[in-house]
Amino acid sequence: MSVKSYIESNRERFWEELFSLISIPSISAKHEHQPDMEACARRWTEILLSSGADSAVVMATKGNPVVYAERIISPELPTVLVYSHYDVMPVEPLDLWRSDPFKAEIRDGRIWARGADDDKGQAMMQVKGFETAIREGLLNCNVKFIFEGEEEIGSPSLEDFCKENKELLKADIILVSDTSMVSPDIPSLTTGLRGLAYWEIEVTGPNRDLHSGHFGGAVANPVNTLCKLIAGIQDENGRIVIPGFYDDVEELSPAEREMIARIPFDEEKYKASIGVNALYGETGYSTLERNSCRPSFDICGIWGGYTGEGSKTVLPSKACAKMSTRLVPHQDYRKITEMMEKYIESVAPDNVTVKIRSTHGGQGYVCPIDIPAYKAAEKAMETAFGKKPLAVRRGGSIPIIATFEEVLGLKTILMGFGLEENAIHSPNESCRLDYFYKGIETVAEFYREFR
Amino acid sequence: MSVKSYIESNRERFWEELFSLISIPSISAKHEHQPDMEACARRWTEILLSSGADSAVVMATKGNPVVYAERIISPELPTVLVYSHYDVMPVEPLDLWRSDPFKAEIRDGRIWARGADDDKGQAMMQVKGFETAIREGLLNCNVKFIFEGEEEIGSPSLEDFCKENKELLKADIILVSDTSMVSPDIPSLTTGLRGLAYWEIEVTGPNRDLHSGHFGGAVANPVNTLCKLIAGIQDENGRIVIPGFYDDVEELSPAEREMIARIPFDEEKYKASIGVNALYGETGYSTLERNSCRPSFDICGIWGGYTGEGSKTVLPSKACAKMSTRLVPHQDYRKITEMMEKYIESVAPDNVTVKIRSTHGGQGYVCPIDIPAYKAAEKAMETAFGKKPLAVRRGGSIPIIATFEEVLGLKTILMGFGLEENAIHSPNESCRLDYFYKGIETVAEFYREFR
Repeated sequence: MSVKSYIESNRERFWEELFSLISIPSISAKHEHQPDMEACARRWTEILLSSGADSAVVMATKGNPVVYAERIISPELPTVLVYSHYDVMPVEPLDLWRSDPFKAEIRDGRIWARGADDDKGQAMMQVKGFETAIREGLLNCNVKFIFEGEEEIGSPSLEDFCKENKELLKADIILVSDTSMVSPDIPSLTTGLRGLAYWEIEVTGPNRDLHSGHFGGAVANPVNTLCKLIAGIQDENGRIVIPGFYDDVEELSPAEREMIARIPFDEEKYKASIGVNALYGETGYSTLERNSCRPSFDICGIWGGYTGEGSKTVLPSKACAKMSTRLVPHQDYRKITEMMEKYIESVAPDNVTVKIRSTHGGQGYVCPIDIPAYKAAEKAMETAFGKKPLAVRRGGSIPIIATFEEVLGLKTILMGFGLEENAIHSPNESCRLDYFYKGIETVAEFYREFR
Repeated sequence: MSVKSYIESNRERFWEELFSLISIPSISAKHEHQPDMEACARRWTEILLSSGADSAVVMATKGNPVVYAERIISPELPTVLVYSHYDVMPVEPLDLWRSDPFKAEIRDGRIWARGADDDKGQAMMQVKGFETAIREGLLNCNVKFIFEGEEEIGSPSLEDFCKENKELLKADIILVSDTSMVSPDIPSLTTGLRGLAYWEIEVTGPNRDLHSGHFGGAVANPVNTLCKLIAGIQDENGRIVIPGFYDDVEELSPAEREMIARIPFDEEKYKASIGVNALYGETGYSTLERNSCRPSFDICGIWGGYTGEGSKTVLPSKACAKMSTRLVPHQDYRKITEMMEKYIESVAPDNVTVKIRSTHGGQGYVCPIDIPAYKAAEKAMETAFGKKPLAVRRGGSIPIIATFEEVLGLKTILMGFGLEENAIHSPNESCRLDYFYKGIETVAEFYREFR
């Protein structure tokens, strides 16, 4: 039997299994769903075992448990580690849902439910692709599964779990289906994510709020000063002036820029969707380059002085801001953090006290497109979707991917089958049935290719 | 009898009259003191009549009443309009007072009570100086008194009262004792006050907060933009770059700068008192010039984006600031308001929407030092204090003084006898007895000189 026909003849059962997971409201953000987390983890072990895992267990963490399963064919063969999460986002506002979020419904060729895509649906594509590969005799590697229950709340326990279970999680590559494709017509693999460095900066002037009439003009105003410091970080071309900031930034190759230019992108629609008349960014780069392959600098919050109603004539004592840079692969957030702090120290005037404190950071991620796992994923997707997928870098950060690289030393293939229209995290989340099957097919074909 | 000996032989009565006013807690900020406002106004009419006024009445306004009194000698003679206020500031925190704020006490050569200086004490110097001038046969002009009951809450009813009573308030000069001298050793007259223009500015970027990973670098951040706009208003020399801003600023004459340089000023003490390591202001001017005779630009408040605990990676939709310029005499706040708005429009980038709204403004004030009333005040003060007073410009604004000039067309002599050590608005407000007498003497001598 072929992969396609195996999927075709088993699809009702695949739905049933997915629906059984969906019916457990495993909302990690709400404490009252604690028992559901356990139940959902246990249900996954049953499905993983029946799908072909040799063993499947629920493992404790300091937070919600982790599901671990494996099928070990031979220690000589390479090992794929499949990561996913079984927790889902809250469902409010409930009155916007056209059907019960925890009772999956099939309408208009789609599955409608919380988790239909993110990430119960996509995890099921992985597991059923794994099953299909076994039944079709395509599996040439060992497979391990790790499904966590805290992704939607920032994976607070996962890093420790990885550190404590390095041997168990030993593998050659990580496979994740938790991202989206560029569009229904354009299959894609996510090959890059940006890193992040984040600071709080505090500028203190006088020891109390002063009368702006008696002191204004003679005493440095910390809000004015903070604005000058912030404004000085970027030049008129939108480039960050911190010495050394771009040292490790890899310039985009002509081939990469060409690939980005091939991504369909309607600038007018983009502007309209966020309500701006014009876009702005680093000179010499396109919008899609700016928001995925180039670093950025954003003030995330600012406050100081009198912010109530009416007018208070005050020269404030203090001003603060939260600021961040998105980093591109190869920029080390620790080096950048240090550079920013040195830069601010070097330009801070002596008439105020400037304190800058790093609050957190994370590394960017880049997946080489010449490794066997990437090539296998590319070919598998081409088989299932009829088109070679684009390699696409994204502007956001998925901290766990960088954590996997740091802690386990593993690259990740971001083989996501989501679509923007699936409305993950929102009411009426859904997943196209044909993409559910194509996802399963891609995973099965991946195992045919990967060895 | 001489002025000095008249004061000497009547001083106990002067105290008694002042103490009777102090005992009425006329706190304008607290509604529960409404009956005290009326009582205090009535008490003033009694004192004004017994001091030599022909008539004294309590006049209604839309807020607290105004006390009006007059002594008209002849329509041919010039008229002095004495302005003061009978309301006082709240007294909290009460436990810091060493004696009852409303039961005046004499200790260590000072009167201790709320209003001992501001402004019951200083108003009493005016009224008893007026009485002394009459008894000593020195009065050569008509005198009118207007004491309001809302100065400490911003004089909300006074402008309308002046507009409705222009004829009644007709005069040649206004005399006010409600400011301070430079120091106990340095008698001074306040000859200038700064004006003010105040705005709120709002920068809107995308129609909602955006994910800084997905959009950062490609969409203008309104907080970054606001900081750039604010930072651009002043150049590296602390000068305001708005075209035309300095057009009406009168450059200080060498004589004026010399007078300012004669004011004793300890920069180290000044810095220590406000807790800064260094001062900052317009290049080429001293601190005392910067905070009184030069314009200034201060952000009074700023806010935008995420300001809570922790780090949120957001590209905010909006950022706002409250900003003000202090203006020097001859700068018209309406012209400046328009200039600022035009400037901001001209530099606002098209990738955000910038709204600027003037919230209020006020004119600066300058008193010519060659008019008869100033010369009379100078001579009177020299007689009482033994030193020619310095003409001093102050950085703050007293909006009513500009209102008097606008509505009544009158200049004001700011003949204040306060001292910083008197702790007005604070617990343990006081007034030196010897300065109380010197104040009365100055006023009596003013009437000797003024004609």
